[in-house]
Amino acid sequence: MKIGVLLSGCGVFDGSEIQEAVSVLIALDELGVEAQCLAPDMAQHHVMNHLKGEEMEPSRNVLVESARIARGEILSLEAESAEDLDGLVIPGGFGAAKNLCTWAFDGPDASVQPAVAKLIVDLVKAGKPIAALCVAPVAVAKALQGSGISATMTLGTTEGSSPYDISGFHGGLEATGMKTRNCPLGEIAVDEANKIISSPCYMMEASPAKILAGVRKACAKLVELAKVG
Amino acid sequence: MKIGVLLSGCGVFDGSEIQEAVSVLIALDELGVEAQCLAPDMAQHHVMNHLKGEEMEPSRNVLVESARIARGEILSLEAESAEDLDGLVIPGGFGAAKNLCTWAFDGPDASVQPAVAKLIVDLVKAGKPIAALCVAPVAVAKALQGSGISATMTLGTTEGSSPYDISGFHGGLEATGMKTRNCPLGEIAVDEANKIISSPCYMMEASPAKILAGVRKACAKLVELAKVG
Repeated sequence: MKIGVLLSGCGVFDGSEIQEAVSVLIALDELGVEAQCLAPDMAQHHVMNHLKGEEMEPSRNVLVESARIARGEILSLEAESAEDLDGLVIPGGFGAAKNLCTWAFDGPDASVQPAVAKLIVDLVKAGKPIAALCVAPVAVAKALQGSGISATMTLGTTEGSSPYDISGFHGGLEATGMKTRNCPLGEIAVDEANKIISSPCYMMEASPAKILAGVRKACAKLVELAKVG
Repeated sequence: MKIGVLLSGCGVFDGSEIQEAVSVLIALDELGVEAQCLAPDMAQHHVMNHLKGEEMEPSRNVLVESARIARGEILSLEAESAEDLDGLVIPGGFGAAKNLCTWAFDGPDASVQPAVAKLIVDLVKAGKPIAALCVAPVAVAKALQGSGISATMTLGTTEGSSPYDISGFHGGLEATGMKTRNCPLGEIAVDEANKIISSPCYMMEASPAKILAGVRKACAKLVELAKVG
């Protein structure tokens, strides 16, 4: 079994959330399935100095920076297709909402990278599972919008402690035609019909061990659904 | 209890090995101890394109890039002292041998960053434990050389599968006055007298789940030794 791991850079503020991405690689390895890291070969929307929280120059490439997490073992998104994969995990981090799509700037009116949209839609239509972690459901929503598929996903719960406006994010997802549900840190929301799993991760107040615990549940369910398929 | 995590950048080929660093943050969190990420505020030796394995421009700063792993929650190495910490973990990656010291270029004749050497020597003399993962023992060896302390450490085992020349590394450590022993992936070498733990991690052929398993053992022993102290 080969599961794609779609990265969007290397660092929470302009790329993939590193702790989530590594937790995915750990969890898939524990489950005995092959992980194939993927990322789009494109310029990042911008580069953030993670110490100061300020933009910095010069531009960086999403695939090149994502390769840091993958120790160089990564493919361009365009080099992989849904036929080659048994499922896909998309870690969070602002890169999912800045590089994979433009939700961080445009909300529900965001555009989505065509290769990202194609892979997601092809997987769902093929009955192959996707796990969208943290803020990644916004990219899945933009990919599915207009495809006739309305998935149920979560970005967290309005009843827990979050640095973000969960109800605002949920309202945005609904504006794209998706459905939403509250889900606490460490738990997963499963859309069994569309085989789409989501889990809040760092959308809620969290810590590295809690991230791994939640990611493990998401990956275990993903592999279960991939086997059924 | 507060344990320092000394980072050396963000990416195996020019900084901290990301999977090892995140595994340390997970393991310390699971043990219920506070992790304080630290890194020297200095230019990286160089920047490697992790996709192509080639050097690239422009220069990057070790502290700024390390902040990506730490989600911005990091201190300059110079802002922390051994008195403030109960122990230290140093993940591997070439950054430990390119930025913390120059072993990757100069072998046992390497120089070591003064702030790195001071923290390590101060901790050992204070009876506080250090866990040096993967290639990080070379930085510890250079810090201790000339201090009168001869620690026993491992970089792996000559009897397992490694992409590196373990016996060559061990010979180098011995040239600095240290002692060495073979240790397989997932196990730890403990110098009880000096409270120095080492574990091979990606010095041997490994995978993300195996890295976490070994890091967990190293961190558990570190916390045990810190409590005794």
